[in-house]
Order: sequence, then C-alpha cells, then structure tokens
Amino acid sequence: MTDTEPADRRRRFSLRTSRMEALSDGIFAIASTLLVLDLAIPAANGDVGHSLVEQWPTYLAYLVSFATIGNSWLNHSVITEYLERADAILLRLNLVLLFFVSVLPFPTHMVAEYLSNNSAERIAVTVYGLNLLAIGAFTSLTWHYAVAERLARRDNSEDDVRAISAKLDPSLASDAVAIGIGLLWPKVAVALYLVIALFVIIPFRAVFRQVRRGRSSDLNRPGRGQP
Amino acid sequence: MTDTEPADRRRRFSLRTSRMEALSDGIFAIASTLLVLDLAIPAANGDVGHSLVEQWPTYLAYLVSFATIGNSWLNHSVITEYLERADAILLRLNLVLLFFVSVLPFPTHMVAEYLSNNSAERIAVTVYGLNLLAIGAFTSLTWHYAVAERLARRDNSEDDVRAISAKLDPSLASDAVAIGIGLLWPKVAVALYLVIALFVIIPFRAVFRQVRRGRSSDLNRPGRGQP
Amino acid sequence: MTDTEPADRRRRFSLRTSRMEALSDGIFAIASTLLVLDLAIPAANGDVGHSLVEQWPTYLAYLVSFATIGNSWLNHSVITEYLERADAILLRLNLVLLFFVSVLPFPTHMVAEYLSNNSAERIAVTVYGLNLLAIGAFTSLTWHYAVAERLARRDNSEDDVRAISAKLDPSLASDAVAIGIGLLWPKVAVALYLVIALFVIIPFRAVFRQVRRGRSSDLNRPGRGQP
Amino acid sequence: MTDTEPADRRRRFSLRTSRMEALSDGIFAIASTLLVLDLAIPAANGDVGHSLVEQWPTYLAYLVSFATIGNSWLNHSVITEYLERADAILLRLNLVLLFFVSVLPFPTHMVAEYLSNNSAERIAVTVYGLNLLAIGAFTSLTWHYAVAERLARRDNSEDDVRAISAKLDPSLASDAVAIGIGLLWPKVAVALYLVIALFVIIPFRAVFRQVRRGRSSDLNRPGRGQP
Repeated sequence: MTDTEPADRRRRFSLRTSRMEALSDGIFAIASTLLVLDLAIPAANGDVGHSLVEQWPTYLAYLVSFATIGNSWLNHSVITEYLERADAILLRLNLVLLFFVSVLPFPTHMVAEYLSNNSAERIAVTVYGLNLLAIGAFTSLTWHYAVAERLARRDNSEDDVRAISAKLDPSLASDAVAIGIGLLWPKVAVALYLVIALFVIIPFRAVFRQVRRGRSSDLNRPGRGQP
Repeated sequence: MTDTEPADRRRRFSLRTSRMEALSDGIFAIASTLLVLDLAIPAANGDVGHSLVEQWPTYLAYLVSFATIGNSWLNHSVITEYLERADAILLRLNLVLLFFVSVLPFPTHMVAEYLSNNSAERIAVTVYGLNLLAIGAFTSLTWHYAVAERLARRDNSEDDVRAISAKLDPSLASDAVAIGIGLLWPKVAVALYLVIALFVIIPFRAVFRQVRRGRSSDLNRPGRGQP
Repeated sequence: MTDTEPADRRRRFSLRTSRMEALSDGIFAIASTLLVLDLAIPAANGDVGHSLVEQWPTYLAYLVSFATIGNSWLNHSVITEYLERADAILLRLNLVLLFFVSVLPFPTHMVAEYLSNNSAERIAVTVYGLNLLAIGAFTSLTWHYAVAERLARRDNSEDDVRAISAKLDPSLASDAVAIGIGLLWPKVAVALYLVIALFVIIPFRAVFRQVRRGRSSDLNRPGRGQP
Repeated sequence: MTDTEPADRRRRFSLRTSRMEALSDGIFAIASTLLVLDLAIPAANGDVGHSLVEQWPTYLAYLVSFATIGNSWLNHSVITEYLERADAILLRLNLVLLFFVSVLPFPTHMVAEYLSNNSAERIAVTVYGLNLLAIGAFTSLTWHYAVAERLARRDNSEDDVRAISAKLDPSLASDAVAIGIGLLWPKVAVALYLVIALFVIIPFRAVFRQVRRGRSSDLNRPGRGQP
C-alpha cells in the first residue's frame, strides 16, 4: 500500500458504508430507547396522578434527549447519504461520535434527578451541554473530513456541500452559548436545549416553503441536502 | 434550491429510505424487547407458582404492548414498502412516531403495576390509551403525507393507496372509543386493547381467504397492500 | 384484491423480506444481549472469587439461552435465505416467533434464580422448556407455511427443502422430551438443553465432513441448506 | 449434498453475509450502549461534584470497554468486507465471537466496582483480560477460517490478506501479556487496556501517512485492508 500504486487500484480499497450505517442506526436506536428506563413508576399508594405530574423534569429530560438524538441522527443520515465509501479515519471519527451518543442517557439521568436541586443542577446541566457540544463537534468533524478527503460522491454540487456545512457548524456556536447560560441559569439552559431540539424536529422552514408553494405545484420535492 | 430548478435535478435530491427503515426497525425491536425487563421474578421462598400466577397483569400488559408494537411495525412496513424516497418532513413525522413507540414501555409498566388499584388504574389505562392513539395518529399522518407529497412509488395503483388508508384511519376511531371506555371501566379497556391487537396479529381475513380458496389454486398470494 | 385479478399483478404485491429480517435481527440481538443484565456483581466485601463461582447457575442459564437464541437465529437465517417475499400470514407467524424469542430472558432469569431451590426449580425449568418448544414450533410453522404458500425462491431444489424440514422438525420432539424429563429431574433437563444447544452451535457434522475431505480438495463448500 | 455434486451447484448454496452482519452490528451496538446503565447517579444530597469525580473507575471502565468493542467492530467490518458468503462453521465462529462481545459488560462492571478493592480487583482485571483475549482469538479464528475455506472474494490480493493477518494476530500476544501483568499489578493492566484501545481508535499511522503526503496529492485514499 505504497504511494506508487495506481489510483484505480486504490479506489477499489476503502470500506462500504453499510456496516458503519448499521452500527450507527443501532446505537442511535438504543440510546434513544434506553432513556425510557429512567421513567420511574410512582408507588401505587398515595395520589398517583400528583406523583406522576411531579416527575415533570424526568419527562422534560427524556423529551430533550430524544429530540437531540433524533436531530443528530438526521444530520448523520444526510452525511452518509453523501458518502461513497469510508476510510480508516472516518470510521474512527464516527465511533467517537457514537461514543458521545451512547453516553447521553447518563447526563440526561443527571438532569432529571437534579433539576430541583440548586447546587447539583448546575453540574448536571453543564455536563449535559458538554455532551451535546461533543455530539455536534464530531458530527461536523466527520462531515468536514469526508469532504476534505473526497469520500463523498462525485455528483454532489458545491452548493449541497455548502448547505450542509452551513447547517452543522452554527449549531456548535449555539451549544457553546447554551453551556455558558447554563452556568448562570441552569433551568434556562434546559429550556433552550428543548427549543433548539424542537426547532430542528419541527421543520418550520420546510413547512413554510410547502405552504407558500401550495399543493397544486408538481415541483414541491424538498432537497436532499436540507432535511 | 429555488423553484426554478429543473424537476429532474430535484428528484436526485431526497434521501434513501434505508436509514429511516433501519432506525425504525431498531427502535421497534428494542421497545418490544425492553418490556421483558418488567417481568419480575418472585422471591424463591414461598409458593413461587402462586406468586407467578398472581403477576398476571404484568403478563397481560406485556402481551398487549408486544402485539401493539408488532401491529404498528406491520403498518410501518407497508408504508415504507410504498415509499420511494423520504423528505425532510417525512423523516421528522417518522421520528415523532418512533418517540411514541419508544415511550410505550412506560405506560405499559404503569398498567401492569396499577391494575389491581382502583384510583391509579384509571390514570394508567388512560395514559396507555393516549400513547396508542398517538402511535396510530402519526402512522396515519406519515402515510397521508407520503401520498400527498408523491413520495410513494409511481407504480402503486389508486386501489392500493385507498386500501391502506381504509386500514389505518379506522383504528384511530377505535383507539379513541377505547380511551373513553377506559375512563369508566379501565379493565374493560385493557381487554379491548388486547382484542384489537390480537385481531390484527391473527390474520382472520387472510386465513379465511386462504381456506375458501383451498390449496389447489395457484392464485393464493395475499396482496402487498393488505398484510 | 379479488380472485379474478391476473396472476402477474398479484405477484407484484407481497412485501420485501428486508424489514422482516431487520426486525428479527434486532430482536435476536437484543434478547441475547439483555441476558447480561442478569449477571449480578457480588458485593466487594467478603470472598469475591468464591461468590463469583457460587453464581454458576446464572452463567449456565446465560450460556444455554445465548446458545439457544443463536441456534434459533441460524434456523431463521436459513429460512429467510430461501424466501423471496413475505405475505400477511408469514409476517405474523414471524412476529409470534419473535415474541417467544424476546420473552426468553424471563424464564432464563427464573432458572438462574431457582436452580438451588427444589420446588421452584421444577416450575422454572418447565416454563423455560415450554418457551424453547414455542420458539421451535413457530420456526417450523414459519418454514412449512413459506414452502406451502410458495413464498420461497423458485430455484430451490426439493432436496434443500426436505433437508431443512428434516432439521427443524425433530428438534420439536427433543424439546418435548426434555420438558417431560424436567418435570422429574429439573437439573438433568438444564444439562440437556445445554447439550442440545452446544450440539447445534458446535458443527460436529460439518467439522467431520471437513476433516474427511481434507484441505487439498477444492470442493469443500458446505451447502446453503445445512448450516 | 454429497461430494459428487458439481462445483457450480455447490457454490449456489452458502448463505448471504447480510444477516450475519446485521446480527453482529446489533450485538456490537447493544453491548456498547448497555454499558451506560452502569453509570450510576450519586444521591443529590451532599457534594455531587465530588461524588461524580470519585466514580472515575466507572468512567474508565466504560471508556476502555467502548473502545475495545469499537476496535473489535472495526476488525469485524474489515473481515466481512472481504467475505463473499458464509458457511455453517463461519456463522458459528461468529456466534461465539458475539457471545464474548455481549458478555463484556459483566467484567466491565466488575472492574468498575472492584478497582478500589485490593483482593477483588485482581480477579476482575483477570476475567476482563480473558474476555478481551477471547474476543481477539475468535476474531482471528473467523478470519483465518474464511481465508482457508476461500469464503473471501476472489479479487483480494495476497497482500491484503497478509496485511489483515498481520494486524489481528499480534493483538492476541499483547492481550496475553496484559493478563500476566494484571495478575501482578491490576491497575497497570487497566491502563494498558486503555492505551491499546486508544491506540487502535486514534489512527496514528493513518494520520501520519496523511500528514506526510499532504493535502495536495490526489492519491491519499487509505486502503481497504488497513483501517
């Protein structure tokens, strides 16, 4: 495998992306579903309805984390859609990304547990924010690496690549700002994470575009690069 | 990505459905298997057989939820069978559907725990019913969106589309009725959910069709649109 | 979807088997991995080595169940290898099979817990045996249904079909015998389940065939129908 | 299925590798994600930050095990990339490998629990090392079996095969050495496992190659056989 090998032989190497996609989908699916184990059942004696309502931080943490993992999966899907093959470094960047996805139930549990406790909630929200930042950072890194190393399909236009970069990178800045806010007002940061996640899950722009164009048009197919 | 782009370029965008199917299968598989963690083992001292039998609400809840998730998966399979590609909104509708699938073990656990408790069982059965309704509603929504946006394959006949719609939509009404019944007689609602789920799992109509036609015929292949 | 439709249109219906395979692989993978959650860690005070060795029934139950699920997965793989498409009834037979696979951690847990308890171990071993019998029965049923309904690929020889049937059906008889033995001598039945599972996992016949033919031959490819 | 059958008919048998890959990806994904359930949340009363920091052996064990499973998955991906089909023995070797992957959370839990306990940590680290050795051994065995039985694609060069063997086999030696060290100095062995896993995850050689060649070259595609 020296530099003197012909280019067409080199191209034949490189791994299919199917295994990488399957492992990723598995870890995304498990990380988001394991969160349900944290939803505890109050004891049957006493006012069950009241106890269930009092658990609201647990539900909130569940919702934010599911939305965040869903969001991360959406970005990951777009990236692998553009990939033609994977190389040694890309597979490892992806593994580090999956590490931070699989660990998210831990800070989620912390936020749910500590949200009514003043000194502990600051720690929980900060660890949670750092985890989100790491997921965002390694998603961006994976994408930029794939583009730089030309692992993406040849038929992608420059516009698509720019559109994806323009979508992934700013979310890092908003995550960093939310961590700063969380150090001062932890509860505000949790609300912010919920807003960010819902903003991505609810496709405001896509819905708006749809409505504007109306149903009569035959051209209303959303683009691959902009889910 | 403006409206002036030619239609054939637009078609090239849109995501494969393979990632969406893989994530969905993962979450369906995990949500249905995690339910087994709720089946507790009675202490070895005392009459184990008696204790095991006394846990019947847990087994019932497990069975109903497994059948319900299986049913939802069957509908989901039929929908994706018709899909040619996914767009931004479809992927998000699917994520919301998966959210309600992944959360089902929580009300299942509640029903199992509270079924012998008068005031709590009403809450448990109602939350459970709302969860089932949400799963049904987002399954229908995903389907109608795909049809409206022409994300389905071109070669589907109008009949197939109508047959699927005719199958998905009425189940919403039966879920809503069961929630109402559950507010008055919670145990009746649980029995009803079991009947609904088994009615879907046991393919009465398909078996009947099979029997009527007999084994001699070469034409006994059930249709794609009607599992 | 009446009987007067032409045959070629009917053939176009029927679902791909990919979703069914993906859900099955997910449930097989989770059911076998969830078993590890039952392996408890003894408290650090006291003789840890001794406590670990004393947990042998837990390890045994884990091993038997992993081998049994692995065995069931092998049979399932062979069946789907022969399938060209799935129909309404096949998908449901498969769901019932997956139900019994996903529930196996429960009797496994019971066997591990009760193996040193005389009255309880009989119940545990019998429930475990019935679960294994149900897995075997629905595997056979799925196979025979697929063959009867001609859902299998056309290019399968009669010999292959007979070979698979000859492999699936006798295991039902051995499971039934083991249940009977378990009612009298529970520990013997557990040993028997281990032997059966290992007999399938360790490919004695295949190894023997390999050895007999030697490495020099170019013809030593084991057949598709006989893993 | 006798030795007199023609060779081309034999070739038609043999299973696709897709099911084997799907089950493997599922078990790799679950085994690595289940580890997060061991990360316990300290009680909210008291110094939460301090309690979290004191849990460092749990985090370390989590990190080492995730990296080890990731590493094993990388090797597994390379092997299946070369496979054209699976036979009876290969599927079973793979099941034994998956058994040792799925059981890894148990010794991981032990290491995390016993790392501050002198007599118990030796046992924990040794069991952990034996588990890693078994994963490595069955990965190598699967590979060598596939090569010997010519289950790999015909278009693989001898160089690729040698490169993979040269990568898999030495790791067995380093695992064995680490087990020996663990009997004397358990904590050193844990550090060593971390270093080995990170050395594989962080692609030093690939990064070095990349840097040396620079970004201007069009030839910088890493080879398939050397992730």
